[in-house]
Amino acid sequence: MIERIEAFRRRRPRLRDEIVTLAHGAGGKSSAALVDAVFVEAFHNELGDGAVLTTPSGERLAFSTDSFVVQPLRFPGGSIGHLAVHGTVNDLACSGAVPQWLSAAFVLEEGFGVAELKEIVADMASAAAAAGVRIVTGDTKVVPRGAADGLFVTTSGVGVIPAGRRFPAVRPGDRLILSGTMGDHGMAVMLARGDLAIEADIASDTAPVHGVVEALLAAAPGTRWLRDPTRGGVGTVANELAQDTGLGVVLDEQSLPVRPVVNGACEMLGIDPLYVANEGKFLAVVAPEEADAALAAMRSHPLGADSVVIGEITAQPASTVVLRTAFGGTRIVDMLVGDPLPRIC
Amino acid sequence: MIERIEAFRRRRPRLRDEIVTLAHGAGGKSSAALVDAVFVEAFHNELGDGAVLTTPSGERLAFSTDSFVVQPLRFPGGSIGHLAVHGTVNDLACSGAVPQWLSAAFVLEEGFGVAELKEIVADMASAAAAAGVRIVTGDTKVVPRGAADGLFVTTSGVGVIPAGRRFPAVRPGDRLILSGTMGDHGMAVMLARGDLAIEADIASDTAPVHGVVEALLAAAPGTRWLRDPTRGGVGTVANELAQDTGLGVVLDEQSLPVRPVVNGACEMLGIDPLYVANEGKFLAVVAPEEADAALAAMRSHPLGADSVVIGEITAQPASTVVLRTAFGGTRIVDMLVGDPLPRIC
Repeated sequence: MIERIEAFRRRRPRLRDEIVTLAHGAGGKSSAALVDAVFVEAFHNELGDGAVLTTPSGERLAFSTDSFVVQPLRFPGGSIGHLAVHGTVNDLACSGAVPQWLSAAFVLEEGFGVAELKEIVADMASAAAAAGVRIVTGDTKVVPRGAADGLFVTTSGVGVIPAGRRFPAVRPGDRLILSGTMGDHGMAVMLARGDLAIEADIASDTAPVHGVVEALLAAAPGTRWLRDPTRGGVGTVANELAQDTGLGVVLDEQSLPVRPVVNGACEMLGIDPLYVANEGKFLAVVAPEEADAALAAMRSHPLGADSVVIGEITAQPASTVVLRTAFGGTRIVDMLVGDPLPRIC
Repeated sequence: MIERIEAFRRRRPRLRDEIVTLAHGAGGKSSAALVDAVFVEAFHNELGDGAVLTTPSGERLAFSTDSFVVQPLRFPGGSIGHLAVHGTVNDLACSGAVPQWLSAAFVLEEGFGVAELKEIVADMASAAAAAGVRIVTGDTKVVPRGAADGLFVTTSGVGVIPAGRRFPAVRPGDRLILSGTMGDHGMAVMLARGDLAIEADIASDTAPVHGVVEALLAAAPGTRWLRDPTRGGVGTVANELAQDTGLGVVLDEQSLPVRPVVNGACEMLGIDPLYVANEGKFLAVVAPEEADAALAAMRSHPLGADSVVIGEITAQPASTVVLRTAFGGTRIVDMLVGDPLPRIC
């Protein structure tokens, strides 16, 4: 069966648009098309979630950046300040680095409240302290009323990759582990906007994952690959994994962890939780013989207590993500085309 | 005379505003008040133009970030793409580092033209190539129409500080050198807006300064201090120097280099060119015995050909900048209070 699916193998989409649309910021197919057409062409790289720098003395550092434009600025479980720290900390952690230093650049709209700014900055300071990183440099720009929507924050980060840490290539038979439930952040932000008339007790999972990552790498040094499923969710990140490796990723529908309240909200909105963002989870590909140790180590950390094996790597169908349903069938999990959840980070 | 001026010694201003105003982004007194009230309190540092990181093996790196919100996006001499690369390259250079790696994070307004985005990104690529730096990581966010003004770019950068490079303390008697004419960038952007009904042939000086900096440091290894006069211009940066060192900075009015056409435009607008931004110049404090060698080295570089000694460091008046006028009088050069030139970078 699965062999036949290979015919559907995805190619990187081409940019056909003449103007930027919200879908270009969603992390899915349109984003990939924009990145290919604009950035790969100019910079000769995809500007992915973290680069590895090698210093003259041979030390390896991870370097990453993200802009945050979430609306509303504050939501159950956190604020744009927490997100801005956790997002960059998590990108560095998923590059195999110990996050150390952050920068913070603010674009403020004239008229933004100083008291609200102080609260957001205090959230950044406490998130940084809890994650063991220092915010060491920054910038502030102000634009006239109407030229921005309140406040945007861009954080960049530098982390140190411990000597000798390497990620072996992903192979068929490897296991895919998710460090907790899917979609909590995206749904929390959607409901916080208040225009959906859905009331549900959903909080963002925004949190730093580097502690869980270090626990995993200590227990499973053969770990192959790490990525945090933010925009576009687990479905998008699994597709990036399939495309980057040329291998198949088979997800087991029954093992995908979703809180019932998140699942219910997704059903009411007609959104698959596979595509809804987290901000405090990561996906790891581990060697089959280290899967038990990896899972035990992740579960022993408070932020990885709900870790679970959600799938495995296969040789076929190449470069494709397949969902094995509860009834034994399979369906392809494609990248998102539109953006059902704009401005959730 | 000068001793009496000491009574006017500036203290750091206090934030009295309840909302953010354009003046908070101008780099002057209001900016300093906002930084003190919001960032110093939360992060325990001023988030200045570049931090020095020390890696576990003792290597020293510079790390810097800046957001760019200039309007219009394209102006005589360059675009927001050039600025975004040069701004961060120059901050790293003024931290004593050889700039190496950049990140680029874009906030795009829905509807922004893909062709225009490609041009701006091409400008970034060519500016990076010319400066010898690589753009290695990035991010793209899209916000709905009206939630941003076209495009904002935030670059961050990492550079390597050569082993053994240290800046000795600034001392009375040291000379202050400016690497070229003042105010070209700010005036070029102001006139490019077209709402001033002034036509003048003024181009931005946007350029990478690290080549001139390296020429200077090779010829004058006792160099004490470097800073690029962007927002707020030479007047603001000289005040930062005075405040950081507790010393006096005496500027010689007759030696301040301004192109006649820039000077004319400033006069028509009633703006002192001392406060108008550059994007391809720097100020250096050098030892008196190395001043001639420093000046010769800077002038030998195409981007430092107009370098000139513009003043010197004095013990008194403490923490104050004084202008010695052509008639032998003196007046205090204060930090800007408002923002005569919003969104010029």
